[in-house]
Amino acid sequence: MPARNIRPLHLNAFLNAPGHHAAAWRHPASAGHRLLDVDYHVDLARTAERGLFDAVYLADSLAVRGRPDATAAGGLEPLTLLTALATATEHIGLIATASTTFYEPYILARTLASLDHISHGRVGWHIATGGDLAEAANFNLDEPVEHAVRYERAAEFLDVATQLWDSWADDAVVHDRRNGRYADPDRIRQVEHTGLFFKVRGPLNVQRTPQGWPLLVHTASSADGQEFAARYAEVVLTAQQNLGDAAAFALEVKSRAAAYGREADVPVILPGITPVIGSTEAEARRRARELTELQLVETGVSQLSDLLDVDVSGLDPNRPIPAGLLPREEELSDHRFALITDLAIRERLTVRQIVARLGGGRGYRVVIGTPEQIADSMQEWSQAGAADGFTVAPPILPGGLDDFVDQVVPVLQRRGLYRTEYDLGTLRDRFGVPRPEDHFPEAAPAAVRRAVLPPLASV
Amino acid sequence: MPARNIRPLHLNAFLNAPGHHAAAWRHPASAGHRLLDVDYHVDLARTAERGLFDAVYLADSLAVRGRPDATAAGGLEPLTLLTALATATEHIGLIATASTTFYEPYILARTLASLDHISHGRVGWHIATGGDLAEAANFNLDEPVEHAVRYERAAEFLDVATQLWDSWADDAVVHDRRNGRYADPDRIRQVEHTGLFFKVRGPLNVQRTPQGWPLLVHTASSADGQEFAARYAEVVLTAQQNLGDAAAFALEVKSRAAAYGREADVPVILPGITPVIGSTEAEARRRARELTELQLVETGVSQLSDLLDVDVSGLDPNRPIPAGLLPREEELSDHRFALITDLAIRERLTVRQIVARLGGGRGYRVVIGTPEQIADSMQEWSQAGAADGFTVAPPILPGGLDDFVDQVVPVLQRRGLYRTEYDLGTLRDRFGVPRPEDHFPEAAPAAVRRAVLPPLASV
Repeated sequence: MPARNIRPLHLNAFLNAPGHHAAAWRHPASAGHRLLDVDYHVDLARTAERGLFDAVYLADSLAVRGRPDATAAGGLEPLTLLTALATATEHIGLIATASTTFYEPYILARTLASLDHISHGRVGWHIATGGDLAEAANFNLDEPVEHAVRYERAAEFLDVATQLWDSWADDAVVHDRRNGRYADPDRIRQVEHTGLFFKVRGPLNVQRTPQGWPLLVHTASSADGQEFAARYAEVVLTAQQNLGDAAAFALEVKSRAAAYGREADVPVILPGITPVIGSTEAEARRRARELTELQLVETGVSQLSDLLDVDVSGLDPNRPIPAGLLPREEELSDHRFALITDLAIRERLTVRQIVARLGGGRGYRVVIGTPEQIADSMQEWSQAGAADGFTVAPPILPGGLDDFVDQVVPVLQRRGLYRTEYDLGTLRDRFGVPRPEDHFPEAAPAAVRRAVLPPLASV
Repeated sequence: MPARNIRPLHLNAFLNAPGHHAAAWRHPASAGHRLLDVDYHVDLARTAERGLFDAVYLADSLAVRGRPDATAAGGLEPLTLLTALATATEHIGLIATASTTFYEPYILARTLASLDHISHGRVGWHIATGGDLAEAANFNLDEPVEHAVRYERAAEFLDVATQLWDSWADDAVVHDRRNGRYADPDRIRQVEHTGLFFKVRGPLNVQRTPQGWPLLVHTASSADGQEFAARYAEVVLTAQQNLGDAAAFALEVKSRAAAYGREADVPVILPGITPVIGSTEAEARRRARELTELQLVETGVSQLSDLLDVDVSGLDPNRPIPAGLLPREEELSDHRFALITDLAIRERLTVRQIVARLGGGRGYRVVIGTPEQIADSMQEWSQAGAADGFTVAPPILPGGLDDFVDQVVPVLQRRGLYRTEYDLGTLRDRFGVPRPEDHFPEAAPAAVRRAVLPPLASV
């Protein structure tokens, strides 16, 4: 068996309070009523840690999404929650989304650096480049931010943030009490960045962190997004519905990364999976049906309208969407766009059918079956080069995560596809991603910032 | 004895990793080497909780301050650290500084709301209005932000933030699984703020919090600052060197607050105190001397130059500062300015003497003595109406806080000046500050935002 076929999987637990099915909060086994209860989230993270997951992941949006009457909205802010999870866990990685469009680099770089210290090197940053009207309207704008502008800003943001993370040498602090020398000023440097979006002097007011930089995570779907992921991302989260597309996507992103001179086999690709687990396939199917029946059709239609940026509420739910109503890809930024159009056009699904599919895993691939069947599917994707692991988004929480940890993880372990204990080290170590050097010269005097990131190729 | 004389004190523990003396990090008993160790900060917060403190307080600056060779800089970001402390404590309030000049209101309002949920209603926001060149240069600016502009922005920031905190009614979430109704859309409203600095649609994407708003804390010294504190602050932190000035200050701020129609006796005034504790007065004096001897004069001179915004490094350290070199008050924003000029002019202190005094408590009043003497001073200030309590800034940490908790707190308790156990309730309850109403109408339909904050009076 070639080495590729037996390399272990990475697992990332996508935590979303009541679960990832659109109707999860209505299910009696979900915990939608504990949205604001930090102990609930701590329990989830500890379950994932019990399952030896590489990381937990908290997504984000800078606006209320969906219809508040039918969506469990208004929960905890991810970076705050992630800090709470850091103190309650020991090994598991901690990934949260934060937007380069609306944060200032000094503030976000600092928060992430602080979190990397607090967690002893377990932090990952899911770099979000959103900027639709819902978010823009909370940040002094009247219009969505153009897609190309978001990525230009994101690239410059990364340039500034990485310089800030490198502004203290690893050995800057000497803490020499006797001679009254806390740090070596020659091992701390200003950033003096002046660009199109930012002007930042630096240095950062947080010392260099265990990982140097947080693990850099991105979701790639658009051409801009794939180029950005190829250039910067160390881990890529992606929504993929079928094996062929997923394998092509992985190959494309890794080839582009290689063209930037990056190491082989980066970034690590983690397609999403929403496992609906039963002790028999029939039981699993019954569980999936139960959730579909809890879905509110008008809510799904409103969600679909949101995703497509087209009002589909007036359409007959039992007929396909007319092709003329579908927006062009470049008008959208959501990474689940490809999925929606595929569903709508290729399969000629009705609005109601799309809503049911969408509800299943919010755009992630739903796999319904026994623990063995779910493990089979994961193994197949891994062996085909479509996945280095998975972002596991259980339909219902907390139960769906317990079931995965108790039933699917042991199957993966028996097959030699998954770790049986945590290794020591940082989150970067776990993903096999190198720690960035601080780029200070060996012998001190005039420390000059070296460019560690070449500019983003135009796409 | 009039009721005023026996009302209990509030205590706020100002945590600053190695301690508040400028040379604390050089002292063998301090923990400057644990600046980035979250467990160290947790220990401090738990010590303060053991001492039944109302709150702990973390200050902030958005730039590296002081000379890195001689200052323990580059520690943890306060809001991140505060979240970690929230999960490790149960009763104590959690106050952190965050700047209205450089944050976006949607991001900060959300983080604080999240923290208020995570801590079950224990969060206070120290509203910072800084904006000197060191900070401005990290946020796209070439010049310091003008003092008046900072306060205009702060007032508008407060207006936006409070509207965001009120954008979900307390009873907005109904969580009706059967009927598929998570929240009542009529109990969630947009903010639709358009002002000079911000345009924010809302609503906030965090549900209303246990306290409604975090406890609002401010440091008042300039005329703008006093007006702002009188209008908005529920707790005021202040550096006061003598009883007369402190009493006049408290009276002034409370009178101005009354002029805004606020309740009697708000805001709560907590002057800073740096207690140097010994079992005898002689021992306390020896400890203070020990710290002064660890001070690096050139560092103190550099700090003084920073505070005064005038380079005093060329002056004879053994002579007073020439009066012509001192800046006018309106050119400065630091709340310790009054102290410095008082020292320099009224007492004709030499540069070296000022540096020694400054080093003692970084501008806070240093009280050197036995636990009884320190309690005497606190009691005297309280009875004279100069203080509703104190912000305790130990010269060395962790030992200085342990000593205060173990030696001074029992004296205050014996005198009936301090609680002997925590009451239940939020941080607002502890300070006797009302919880803001959500201002939604009793019976729903068209929820219209009521102005809860009149505009700031011009100063």
